[in-house]
Amino acid sequence: MIDERLKKQLEFLLEIDKMKSLYRQSYIIHDEARGDSMREFEGEKALYKRRENDAEHSFHLALFAMTLAEHANVSVDVLKVMKMVLIHDVVEIDAGDTYCYDTEGYKSKREREEKAADRLFGLLPDDQRDEYRALWEEFERVDTAEARFAAALDRMQPMLLNYSKDGISWREHGVSFEQVHSRNALIKNGSDKLWEYIEEMLREAKEKGCFAE
Amino acid sequence: MIDERLKKQLEFLLEIDKMKSLYRQSYIIHDEARGDSMREFEGEKALYKRRENDAEHSFHLALFAMTLAEHANVSVDVLKVMKMVLIHDVVEIDAGDTYCYDTEGYKSKREREEKAADRLFGLLPDDQRDEYRALWEEFERVDTAEARFAAALDRMQPMLLNYSKDGISWREHGVSFEQVHSRNALIKNGSDKLWEYIEEMLREAKEKGCFAE
Repeated sequence: MIDERLKKQLEFLLEIDKMKSLYRQSYIIHDEARGDSMREFEGEKALYKRRENDAEHSFHLALFAMTLAEHANVSVDVLKVMKMVLIHDVVEIDAGDTYCYDTEGYKSKREREEKAADRLFGLLPDDQRDEYRALWEEFERVDTAEARFAAALDRMQPMLLNYSKDGISWREHGVSFEQVHSRNALIKNGSDKLWEYIEEMLREAKEKGCFAE
Repeated sequence: MIDERLKKQLEFLLEIDKMKSLYRQSYIIHDEARGDSMREFEGEKALYKRRENDAEHSFHLALFAMTLAEHANVSVDVLKVMKMVLIHDVVEIDAGDTYCYDTEGYKSKREREEKAADRLFGLLPDDQRDEYRALWEEFERVDTAEARFAAALDRMQPMLLNYSKDGISWREHGVSFEQVHSRNALIKNGSDKLWEYIEEMLREAKEKGCFAE
């Protein structure tokens, strides 16, 4: 007997595999393919200086959430933050990644993402569709402690990657210190502590010439 | 003032980036690079028929955990299962991936992984080092409801990928239906329901010729 509920859940989970092929603007730090399994991997060279994909980004954020939760301004439900960061980019499967300094792309972002959320979360059984949709909406509205902390991590993680790569994607896109500083100041709403650290890092990045003039 | 605790946490989180370059034997399902960001991506062609890395695998498992927890044989602490699957492969940064049907590699696996766990979890503040280490040890021992369910997901996910790719990595490694069936029967310990589904899938895979003879 086929279990319709399980079937829907697996359909969603297999669709999610597409996030592994959806590339962001950030570069991974350690881009040299590692380990024995690489002996058989044919595409090795192309992986040097590789961009991060949405699955990797979301994985990283979930680890940030479980490791840094103590630094949130107010106590947060860690499970909720983890679920939120794991699903926050699911809509990009249909809507694509909009680079955060791309003002044109931002105009149509919401509409594209609403449609994507309908289809993608709609693959799930109704109760889970509603739960995941609500988590995504909460993340987008940034109006709870969990969403503010999740948003702080989502801003912080690519900056750490970028700093570790001498500001490569900031320079590629001609982004200035002032743009990065003002756009990411909302980290403070989730965590004063993390923003204090990031501000110091951005000052160092500026001295090192990691930004466009 | 530098916060030593935060500094250690971030050192661990940046080290974890290496999991994005540690390739497994499984292939991702949707291996065509997607989205606008690909216009600028130089290594595109090499990504076709791409293997999955540890970060992507762990991301996928965390989503499996939050979506399928209801199918565990006994009620599980979902937060614990999610943390467990997110860190269960961290040791591979130093110890490498051991293919599950590689009996030679399995002999030295435990020793290599113990050493890796010492170094990698040792980057964290002591309390988190102990928490993550304990989660990893529990996953390895498979002696709690959470570990049994996490182990079930860890076995199930690559089989679903592989089935979606007509058994490519089973055939590459000359693995038979009997080997796959017997090695993965422990899924039953975590979830009868999921094992029932997987058994049916393996029977179909056999009929389709997805295994070595």
